[in-house]
Amino acid sequence: MNYNYSNKVPTSDTDAVGEILKAAANPEIISFAGGLPAPELFPVEQIQCAANQVFQEKGRVALQYGSSKGIPELRKIIVERLKQDGITVDEEQLMISTGSQQVLDLTSKMFINEGDTVIVEKPTYLCAIDVFNSYGAHLVGVEMDEDGMKMDLLEEALKANPNTKMIYTIPTFQNPTGRTLSLERRKKLAQLAVQYDVIVLEDNPYGAVRFEGEALPAVRSFDETGHVIYTSTFSKILAPGLRLGWVVAPLELINKYTMMKQSVDLHSDNLAQYIVATFFENNDVDAHVAKITALYKERKDLMMAAIKKYFPKTVRYSQPEGGMFIWIEVPDVTNTQELFDRCIQNNVAFVPGEPFYCGDIVPGTFRLNYSNMPEEQIDIGMKRLAEAIDEVLTQSTANSN
Amino acid sequence: MNYNYSNKVPTSDTDAVGEILKAAANPEIISFAGGLPAPELFPVEQIQCAANQVFQEKGRVALQYGSSKGIPELRKIIVERLKQDGITVDEEQLMISTGSQQVLDLTSKMFINEGDTVIVEKPTYLCAIDVFNSYGAHLVGVEMDEDGMKMDLLEEALKANPNTKMIYTIPTFQNPTGRTLSLERRKKLAQLAVQYDVIVLEDNPYGAVRFEGEALPAVRSFDETGHVIYTSTFSKILAPGLRLGWVVAPLELINKYTMMKQSVDLHSDNLAQYIVATFFENNDVDAHVAKITALYKERKDLMMAAIKKYFPKTVRYSQPEGGMFIWIEVPDVTNTQELFDRCIQNNVAFVPGEPFYCGDIVPGTFRLNYSNMPEEQIDIGMKRLAEAIDEVLTQSTANSN
Repeated sequence: MNYNYSNKVPTSDTDAVGEILKAAANPEIISFAGGLPAPELFPVEQIQCAANQVFQEKGRVALQYGSSKGIPELRKIIVERLKQDGITVDEEQLMISTGSQQVLDLTSKMFINEGDTVIVEKPTYLCAIDVFNSYGAHLVGVEMDEDGMKMDLLEEALKANPNTKMIYTIPTFQNPTGRTLSLERRKKLAQLAVQYDVIVLEDNPYGAVRFEGEALPAVRSFDETGHVIYTSTFSKILAPGLRLGWVVAPLELINKYTMMKQSVDLHSDNLAQYIVATFFENNDVDAHVAKITALYKERKDLMMAAIKKYFPKTVRYSQPEGGMFIWIEVPDVTNTQELFDRCIQNNVAFVPGEPFYCGDIVPGTFRLNYSNMPEEQIDIGMKRLAEAIDEVLTQSTANSN
Repeated sequence: MNYNYSNKVPTSDTDAVGEILKAAANPEIISFAGGLPAPELFPVEQIQCAANQVFQEKGRVALQYGSSKGIPELRKIIVERLKQDGITVDEEQLMISTGSQQVLDLTSKMFINEGDTVIVEKPTYLCAIDVFNSYGAHLVGVEMDEDGMKMDLLEEALKANPNTKMIYTIPTFQNPTGRTLSLERRKKLAQLAVQYDVIVLEDNPYGAVRFEGEALPAVRSFDETGHVIYTSTFSKILAPGLRLGWVVAPLELINKYTMMKQSVDLHSDNLAQYIVATFFENNDVDAHVAKITALYKERKDLMMAAIKKYFPKTVRYSQPEGGMFIWIEVPDVTNTQELFDRCIQNNVAFVPGEPFYCGDIVPGTFRLNYSNMPEEQIDIGMKRLAEAIDEVLTQSTANSN
């Protein structure tokens, strides 16, 4: 059969990122390509203990169909933790989702008609680009600096695109740049959302993993009119395999989310929800997050030190105060794929910048992940990467002479 | 903010079925309304045992991000079991989903443009109607008899709707009717799919729970051209709370499903996948399904006996050979809601037929579930229901005199 796909199916079958991760999966390769948390910090025993308690105390309930909105026990726990981000809501304004990725999908389905504009950071999370594209969104990228998305350029984009439905932002330790939106810009973003009457989808998977600087309140904390939808996840502070996230929004929206979630997967894994709720009841989660933070800081510091030691002085890099990523820009590298191929030969990997961009791509950019690589590998891998950069730059100078 | 929703959001905020289930949740009410498996048969201890093994042997892997396609161990197990339905594929032609509901969503997203026709059984699974509607499908219902969807009427519908993209069917122990598509019609359906070059989405959640009659091969088993997509789930043979299902399709489609799944929830719960795979390795699943089948048969027989004993002779009802539902039609009841309200007063509940229909509703129809109600309650509940029917019929006769 020749399948007649809808216009929501990507026309290309090439999974560029899949190919990159496949290349990087060779065990000889030191990979800074993935975006995985450190599995050695998963609290396996404590989760097992929580699971055993769930099976013993409410096994049948946990294995039965459940509510599309999620179990109240878990929603209450999240509501408590949201106060750390300056967000005060009750559990009726929160729905559990199958990872925060599902919130990106449901929010798109809920708001985007074909051709509607979605404004994103430039660069941004590549699976966000995929999901917005799948609903036919017109994507507009707004430049960032070390303080995140530039608000003057955002306002220009809003003026130039009156059909904007949504601004998507990862304000804290952004993927892929590691950058954080400043306090002033958070306030400004909330104000622009009201002024131009658009939704802000604030995605905060990394915010809890801060190793430097002062914690900043969520953009949502400055919202008094229901313009900011907030999503986060247990993936980075507990375990991504369980696929549990959440969305915070006014009750009217949560009711819509719940109806729409029912039609996409009925509800999120009930057993996993009870396990996570029990884990939170039995453990000091802040102490666990502090462990993650300490390890990631160590790895980030090692990577930063290696950049300073090995990379050409012309290389620009972000200064993450938390999260999992550093963003690199090597001026004079015009073909990032060539650099990637050279790195693979040198047994080291990263994700080239291209899939993080909608529209114009800045060449010579790539993302480095430090959370998933043991300390002793980081210096070695970065040295290999620096050698590849040198080779590519030398060759390019030779070619131009 | 006044939210400007996309055209994929239901305009009505009334959740009719939610209201029904809420009314039926009163513990004084004997509810035949839900569609839940019997929780007393969940193999809680064996699942707990499997979970402990997973935590001990591969805790970190199970808690980490995983593959969008699902873990190979589980895909292999399903491929083996599919032979029972006459389906021979390898594990590359199968993707794990977040329940089979997700397959309905992804298939819709993959094939339906606004205005495309989807042909469904009349009546059909209500959450299927919701998901097709959410992509702007034009739904056409085809009448059934005790042998399932009528193939002559299906062909008429295909001729009348040349923009048909998909036929959705639950051929075995259908929801809501409990009816099963005959062998001849299965062959005919597969042939019509080729002739009119449309997709068949075959949804088979209940097929394994057969207590009478001969097992029939899946419609998919008669497909040689990639026209039939097959989906099923662990919800009815193991536990629905884990939200694990699967889709079987040609590799080209599975690659699309996998890309699209990545953008909706990245992958299904990894821990749950490992638990289920381990459960299957350690247990006699056929023996477990036989236990479910025996209990549901007993409950079905009790409900059937009560229909014969208490219901007016004019009442029509389906004759399920498996699954969880009986479909009732009470001639002369023109207002099913009135009957429902009377039932609630009598402390018994069902789901009125209305939400199962797209288009014309047959009044006086409703769905009864027998899988979720203890044996001793069935006769009592059915007697109350019969009394409510009598009251409504008597009143309607009185009114017309």
